[in-house]
Amino acid sequence: MVLHLLDSLASLSPQQQVVVVGSAREQVEAAVASHGVAVAVQSPQLGTGHAVLQAKDALAGFDGDILILYGDAPLVTAATMKRLQSALTGDTAAAPAAVVLGFRPADPGAYGRIIAAGDTIVKMVEFKDTTPAERAETLCNSGLMAVRAADLWPLLARVGNANAAGEYYLPDIIGLLIADGRTARIIETAADEVAGVNSRAELAALEAQWQSHRRTAAMAAGVTLIDPSSVFFAHDTEIAQDVTIEPFTVFGPGVTIASGTTIRAHSHIEGAIIGENCDVGPFARLRPGTILGAGAKIGNFVETKKAVFGPGAKANHLSYIGDASVGARANIGAGTITCNYDGFFKYRTVIGDGAFIGSNSALVAPVSIGAGAIVAAGSTITADVEPDALALVRPPQTSKSGWATRFRAASLARKKA
Amino acid sequence: MVLHLLDSLASLSPQQQVVVVGSAREQVEAAVASHGVAVAVQSPQLGTGHAVLQAKDALAGFDGDILILYGDAPLVTAATMKRLQSALTGDTAAAPAAVVLGFRPADPGAYGRIIAAGDTIVKMVEFKDTTPAERAETLCNSGLMAVRAADLWPLLARVGNANAAGEYYLPDIIGLLIADGRTARIIETAADEVAGVNSRAELAALEAQWQSHRRTAAMAAGVTLIDPSSVFFAHDTEIAQDVTIEPFTVFGPGVTIASGTTIRAHSHIEGAIIGENCDVGPFARLRPGTILGAGAKIGNFVETKKAVFGPGAKANHLSYIGDASVGARANIGAGTITCNYDGFFKYRTVIGDGAFIGSNSALVAPVSIGAGAIVAAGSTITADVEPDALALVRPPQTSKSGWATRFRAASLARKKA
Amino acid sequence: MVLHLLDSLASLSPQQQVVVVGSAREQVEAAVASHGVAVAVQSPQLGTGHAVLQAKDALAGFDGDILILYGDAPLVTAATMKRLQSALTGDTAAAPAAVVLGFRPADPGAYGRIIAAGDTIVKMVEFKDTTPAERAETLCNSGLMAVRAADLWPLLARVGNANAAGEYYLPDIIGLLIADGRTARIIETAADEVAGVNSRAELAALEAQWQSHRRTAAMAAGVTLIDPSSVFFAHDTEIAQDVTIEPFTVFGPGVTIASGTTIRAHSHIEGAIIGENCDVGPFARLRPGTILGAGAKIGNFVETKKAVFGPGAKANHLSYIGDASVGARANIGAGTITCNYDGFFKYRTVIGDGAFIGSNSALVAPVSIGAGAIVAAGSTITADVEPDALALVRPPQTSKSGWATRFRAASLARKKA
Repeated sequence: MVLHLLDSLASLSPQQQVVVVGSAREQVEAAVASHGVAVAVQSPQLGTGHAVLQAKDALAGFDGDILILYGDAPLVTAATMKRLQSALTGDTAAAPAAVVLGFRPADPGAYGRIIAAGDTIVKMVEFKDTTPAERAETLCNSGLMAVRAADLWPLLARVGNANAAGEYYLPDIIGLLIADGRTARIIETAADEVAGVNSRAELAALEAQWQSHRRTAAMAAGVTLIDPSSVFFAHDTEIAQDVTIEPFTVFGPGVTIASGTTIRAHSHIEGAIIGENCDVGPFARLRPGTILGAGAKIGNFVETKKAVFGPGAKANHLSYIGDASVGARANIGAGTITCNYDGFFKYRTVIGDGAFIGSNSALVAPVSIGAGAIVAAGSTITADVEPDALALVRPPQTSKSGWATRFRAASLARKKA
Repeated sequence: MVLHLLDSLASLSPQQQVVVVGSAREQVEAAVASHGVAVAVQSPQLGTGHAVLQAKDALAGFDGDILILYGDAPLVTAATMKRLQSALTGDTAAAPAAVVLGFRPADPGAYGRIIAAGDTIVKMVEFKDTTPAERAETLCNSGLMAVRAADLWPLLARVGNANAAGEYYLPDIIGLLIADGRTARIIETAADEVAGVNSRAELAALEAQWQSHRRTAAMAAGVTLIDPSSVFFAHDTEIAQDVTIEPFTVFGPGVTIASGTTIRAHSHIEGAIIGENCDVGPFARLRPGTILGAGAKIGNFVETKKAVFGPGAKANHLSYIGDASVGARANIGAGTITCNYDGFFKYRTVIGDGAFIGSNSALVAPVSIGAGAIVAAGSTITADVEPDALALVRPPQTSKSGWATRFRAASLARKKA
Repeated sequence: MVLHLLDSLASLSPQQQVVVVGSAREQVEAAVASHGVAVAVQSPQLGTGHAVLQAKDALAGFDGDILILYGDAPLVTAATMKRLQSALTGDTAAAPAAVVLGFRPADPGAYGRIIAAGDTIVKMVEFKDTTPAERAETLCNSGLMAVRAADLWPLLARVGNANAAGEYYLPDIIGLLIADGRTARIIETAADEVAGVNSRAELAALEAQWQSHRRTAAMAAGVTLIDPSSVFFAHDTEIAQDVTIEPFTVFGPGVTIASGTTIRAHSHIEGAIIGENCDVGPFARLRPGTILGAGAKIGNFVETKKAVFGPGAKANHLSYIGDASVGARANIGAGTITCNYDGFFKYRTVIGDGAFIGSNSALVAPVSIGAGAIVAAGSTITADVEPDALALVRPPQTSKSGWATRFRAASLARKKA
């Protein structure tokens, strides 16, 4: 969910980004690694004001505008983020000290209320502290706000925790700045944009909403989805126009697909860079580190991992190609396995341009198959194969006439016995 | 559909259960085998009263309350079943002789009508026998009822078949007991709960409704469904909290999954007991008799059947593991096949703790791989391997320099010819 | 989309059919090859009237009724096509010279308008030429029409291109014939039937609508769909009654399935003729040229192509069977690969009745396995096997005691180093 937010935020070109987490620091760090984001940990967790304070060190020396967002409200759009920032930095002399994002849900329930006069905030009140009149107010606090660094840290330092939960509430800074005679503005947005996630069913609904946006955007950008509802995107899936995606396809993080490629049904793709005019699936599983050159083909029941395929290379059937490079126009026969792991170390397999790997072969890494070489079907290859050679690992075929007849007779007798 | 009913019924702890079938007795018997249910056959089929009579022998000696349900109305809830039973056995002196479940559909159409005064039934009438005034009645007969054994069998014996179809109708017992001066009560439920299934489209709609309930219940119980609409449960799927299930997953009967496990996309699982923190899929197919110890991993294009995996055991790629036990932390390489069948008998493969099976190996059962043993890639193993040994079945690799060049030249010449 | 139209058109038994394309002639020709359809190319593209003119040569000598349809309006039903034709050829003396199909969309927007008096057309007007009063007219021109060949060609010859786009508009023929004192009739249909496709999102919506119709029709015809929304049909899928299709199934073109067969979840089937009582999937991929005899079984992670399976033949696990015939009751073991391709030519594998192919075998085509023969597991077969023989390709198994222990110790030492 954080990644969805960061993607939206990117269009504002923020100078610095800090994610505050309560736990799972390493998972979050790994997930945001490519976004240039600092991660701060809040432990123990003493309220929203306390959470924001944890970002202070990472923002030392920063004196610009700060936008405070929430990981459990991931659908806030870039447009809304810009509205918050613009309202804070407006060129009028009357620019406010803070801007808060409000919304009017169908059922205001236990949300904190915002009492406002026009777009000026009069009072922020937690639900449990509302008077009956305040409770009738329908404008609710989303928690999101924009405030200058120079104001935020001193205000937060003044927030106390003299409440039942013993927590430091971020909205209290609004009361403090109003008491100082300064101004806080409200801007409103649609309720479903700031919907929080309170259950697994709501999370699934939010995911469905996000996927729906994503599918529509992909089609508008020239991607053909045969059945949009059965294609699942990750936050960073990049697909060029004139790509066709068939039903029952799942994209994990880190996928880029160039123009003219077809992803067939029942495919599962993550961490893969797919070139132009490739043909992938059905039933293909591309794992991280897969790179396909133009016109490469990965067929059914094929798994690839840390595998680079040159232009026009093919692995059409029932294969595992891991820790490998496959040369241009090389052909990997059905049932080929790269044996990349010995239980302790992983080794690479290098297959040259135009090589032909016969079906049901095992390539025991580290091993190299020269350009233009042929590996005979059923071979277990343990030594390098020179270019344009034939490598063969195959004992002679023997035959026992009538053996099957005798075997069946004996087996039937045993079955009856 | 019968299994959905039996699951709901279970919460009433019935003393005896009888399923009356018109055909497919063996299939139904197999399906209900684990539910302690007797199966009776109605042949020929002479109406609903006649169908209920077929259960009489199986209930010989039983003199309690009888609940009559219908296989084609499988969504009746346990709560409704309890309401029927409670209304029959209420502790008032005026407890009725029978309780009938009524409903008010949007279009009463050709349903039989119930004429009632308050909750007392005055008359049950088949649609074809209704007067215009009765036809205007919107309260319809679902067919479900509760009646005591001591009343049911004598009443059924008095039901005749003097009607156009020559059938014995169950609702006729209500008319008989009213004529005897006794009382039948009506309780109502929502129309969609007793909806019958009259076409494949309705069956699919009913299944969709049931799946929707089931998915919501799973999420409420702490199971994460990334895309609820593409996960299909069986009637008895048991999933602990903090399990994550990705899209395009099908559960057949007999699946139990412990906490912390992830079922990845495109998985098909039936008759499997999956331990804690396992990692299954994508593209995994677990068949009946699969048991996974804690932390086991079954990866893509892997099929398991009657296979017990110890804690931390792994079969990550393109394998068939059937009639086997796999020791703790054992590693099954890509493309491994247990050869469990000789066309007549099935045999077991036993793989010891910490064993390492090289890729593309065939293990010809009955065979045992000792603990800590290593099987070299590409081996066909026919004899037991002692613990900590290396087993190797591999002829020497030979190479013919320049053979591929000559082969290509000859093939191209032949293509042109 | 053209194929959907041609399928609908087939029920009118047209004497000749011409598809006019702007590009992609070869793709369209291949797609319609089995429909007896001529293909004409419009290049350059000078308007709808000009497009229709391109069909003139292909229809030389034809003097019957011509129905003009549009590839981007593929949901027009056979019933509507018949209404157009009947209105043109009505047996009254007042049969019109042309019949145009109109519709009333929710938002008429920029559609051309039809000004009519009753069912007689007064004027056809392009949106950009409408007066405000004409713009208020809600009856829009779908473009579809019926007209006699004897009228069409002379009228088209009189259509000019004196407009901003320099194009020849088909609707202009209506104005010309009205000016000639002849009559054009309007018939109306529902807006969603003639909806054009202007974006990928609309195309997906149209496909979804078509699939929905198709699923409903299949269920009405006696096919059981467990989850209709996850089954995708092709335009020509033919499925007999009492076939069951599980979720996540995709049918490509050219599939016929006989009664009693089950297609299990996650299957992908194209160009296959499947006999009675077969069992296919889950995770089966049947490619063009697959023919399954009665009771055949294709299991998980199995790919077939140009492969004929006799009655009761089985390939249950992880196999590739291409360019092959498999005899009745033959059993193909897990991991079997037919090696049908040498990089230049494809060769056939012939497996006799009742043969048993051991697991993890490679059959190097051209090769023949005799009836009743047995191939030992793990064999690479390069020579024909005589009937009832056992073929064995397997070197002796060797074992090195304690090797695994030493290997682990050395590997651990290396890891630490």
